[in-house]
Amino acid sequence: MFDYKLLHALATVVECGGFERAGDVLGLSQSAVSQRIKALEVRLGQPVLMRHPKLSPTPAGQRLLTHYQQVQLLERDLHQTLPTLDNAAARLRIAINADSVVTWWASAVTEICQTEGVLLDLVIEDQEVGLKRLRDGDVAACLCSTPTPIAGARCIKVGEMHYQPLASPGYVARYFPEGPSAGAFQRAPAIVFGPHDQLQHRFLAQCGYHGHFPYHLCPSSEGFVRLASAGIGYGMVPSLQAAEQLQSGQLVSIAQGHSLTVPLYWHFWRHSGLLVQRLTESLNCLML
Amino acid sequence: MFDYKLLHALATVVECGGFERAGDVLGLSQSAVSQRIKALEVRLGQPVLMRHPKLSPTPAGQRLLTHYQQVQLLERDLHQTLPTLDNAAARLRIAINADSVVTWWASAVTEICQTEGVLLDLVIEDQEVGLKRLRDGDVAACLCSTPTPIAGARCIKVGEMHYQPLASPGYVARYFPEGPSAGAFQRAPAIVFGPHDQLQHRFLAQCGYHGHFPYHLCPSSEGFVRLASAGIGYGMVPSLQAAEQLQSGQLVSIAQGHSLTVPLYWHFWRHSGLLVQRLTESLNCLML
Repeated sequence: MFDYKLLHALATVVECGGFERAGDVLGLSQSAVSQRIKALEVRLGQPVLMRHPKLSPTPAGQRLLTHYQQVQLLERDLHQTLPTLDNAAARLRIAINADSVVTWWASAVTEICQTEGVLLDLVIEDQEVGLKRLRDGDVAACLCSTPTPIAGARCIKVGEMHYQPLASPGYVARYFPEGPSAGAFQRAPAIVFGPHDQLQHRFLAQCGYHGHFPYHLCPSSEGFVRLASAGIGYGMVPSLQAAEQLQSGQLVSIAQGHSLTVPLYWHFWRHSGLLVQRLTESLNCLML
Repeated sequence: MFDYKLLHALATVVECGGFERAGDVLGLSQSAVSQRIKALEVRLGQPVLMRHPKLSPTPAGQRLLTHYQQVQLLERDLHQTLPTLDNAAARLRIAINADSVVTWWASAVTEICQTEGVLLDLVIEDQEVGLKRLRDGDVAACLCSTPTPIAGARCIKVGEMHYQPLASPGYVARYFPEGPSAGAFQRAPAIVFGPHDQLQHRFLAQCGYHGHFPYHLCPSSEGFVRLASAGIGYGMVPSLQAAEQLQSGQLVSIAQGHSLTVPLYWHFWRHSGLLVQRLTESLNCLML
C-alpha cells in the first residue's frame, strides 16, 4: 500500500507552488517536505517535480496526483456512507469549455457545491484536449461539444449554446455600413478565441464567404466581449453571455438572423463515484 | 534568403488548424500546402508540425513562426515609411495577465488598433511564463507584475490593480457571520485562479491566518466572479472588474478595509519596431 502522506505532500507542494508554503500548510518544516518528495522519487525511480519553467509535476508526478485525486473521491463516498468519519472535501477536477464557465455553469452547480461541500478544480480546454485529459485520467469529467463518448465513459447532452456575430454599433457603421459582404469580410477585423476555434469560419461559410479575413486572437471569453464592445473587432459571442450588452445596445449583430448552435455534452467515467453521479443528475435536469 | 511562401504556408496551417482550410485561405490545393510544409521540413531536416494531440508547431516550427512574425513586424514599419506599398496588417503577439484582459486592456488599445490597423494575438499567462515567452522570442511584449526587465528588454510601470476579498451576501451570512476569523477561514471555500496564484495566500497572511483553507480552482477571471456571485466561494477580485456587482450589492467584501495592490509592468524588446513603440507610448499615458 502506498504511503499517502507522501502523495499528500506532493499534492500540497504543487498546489502551493513551493516547498516552504507547502510546509506551512502541512505544519512541517521545509526540509521534512523535501524528504517526503525525495522518498516518493526513490520509490518511483524518477523525478515527480520539474523546477523549470515553474514548479510543476512531471508526467509521472501527474499520474500520482491523478491517482491521489481518485482515492480522495472514493474516500469521499466512504464518508457519505460512514458519516461519523470526518468529512474532508475532495476536489473534483473537470475539463470545461471557456464559454460555459462565464455563463450558465456557476448557477447550475451552486446547489451541489453547497449541499455536498464539493470543491471544483476547473480546467479550461477546448473539446479534443478536454476529452484527451478524461482519457488520460487527468479529469473526472469533461464538458464539450463532442457527442461521442470515449471507451469506458458515458455522455449526456446538457443543452445548446447559441452564438451571434456581434460588434459595437460604431464598428458596424465603419465596417458593415451596407451589411455583410465579401468586401467587408476581407477588411473587417474579426476576433477569434484561438487557432482551433472554428466558429468564425463556420459563420463566414454560412454567409457564403470562404476567403481570407483579418482577425485578433483572444483566448478569454470575457476579454473577447470587451474587445468587441470597445469596437476593436466583431466575433461569435454566446447570446447568454451578451444578453446585457444586446439589451443596452452596446453590442449588435452584424448579420441579423445569422446564428450558430453548439451542443454541449457531459462526459464522465462510468464508475466515478457518487459525487459525479449527483453532478450528472443535476446537469441532466438543466434546460439549457 | 528564406522562401517566405513556405513560412506563410506554415503560419496559415497553424492558424487554420488544418491543411484543407489553409488551402482555402491561401487559394491553393491541400496537396500544394502539404508540399510547402514538406519543403520546409526538408530544408530544416526535422518536422515543423505535430499531429497529436492536435495540429501544432514543433519547437522548431514555433521558432520559424516567431521569426516570421518578427519579419512581418519589420515589414510593417517599412510600409509606414513607404506608404505606397500595400499595407498588410501584422499580428502583434502579447503575453498578458487574465485580469487585465477582462478589465482595462480593451479600452487602452482601442485607438491604436483602429488607427494603426494592428491585429492582436493575446496569450494569457501568469508572470513568470509570460516573461519566459518574451525571452524565448515567442511574444513581442509582456504585461505582468514583475518589475525587473529581462536582459535586452525594457519595462515601464503601467499602473496598479486593486483586489478585494469578495463574496455574495448569502455566502458572507453563512460563512462569515461574525467577520473573518481563523475558524471561518478553515471552513469557508475560497476561489483561487490557479496553483500559482498567491493573492489568496497574501490576503490570509494579511489577516494573520497561515493555516490550511479549502478552495476551488477556476482559471477564468469571469468564471471566478460568476462562482463568487453564485455563492460558491469567496476570492480576490479586481475592484475594476467587480464595480457593477459591488454597486448592485451582488458582491460584498468579506473583510472591509482589506485589499491587495498588484503593480503592472509592460515588458518589451528595445528594438521591436514602431508599433510596439506606439503601443508603449499609449500605455505610458494610462492612469491606472
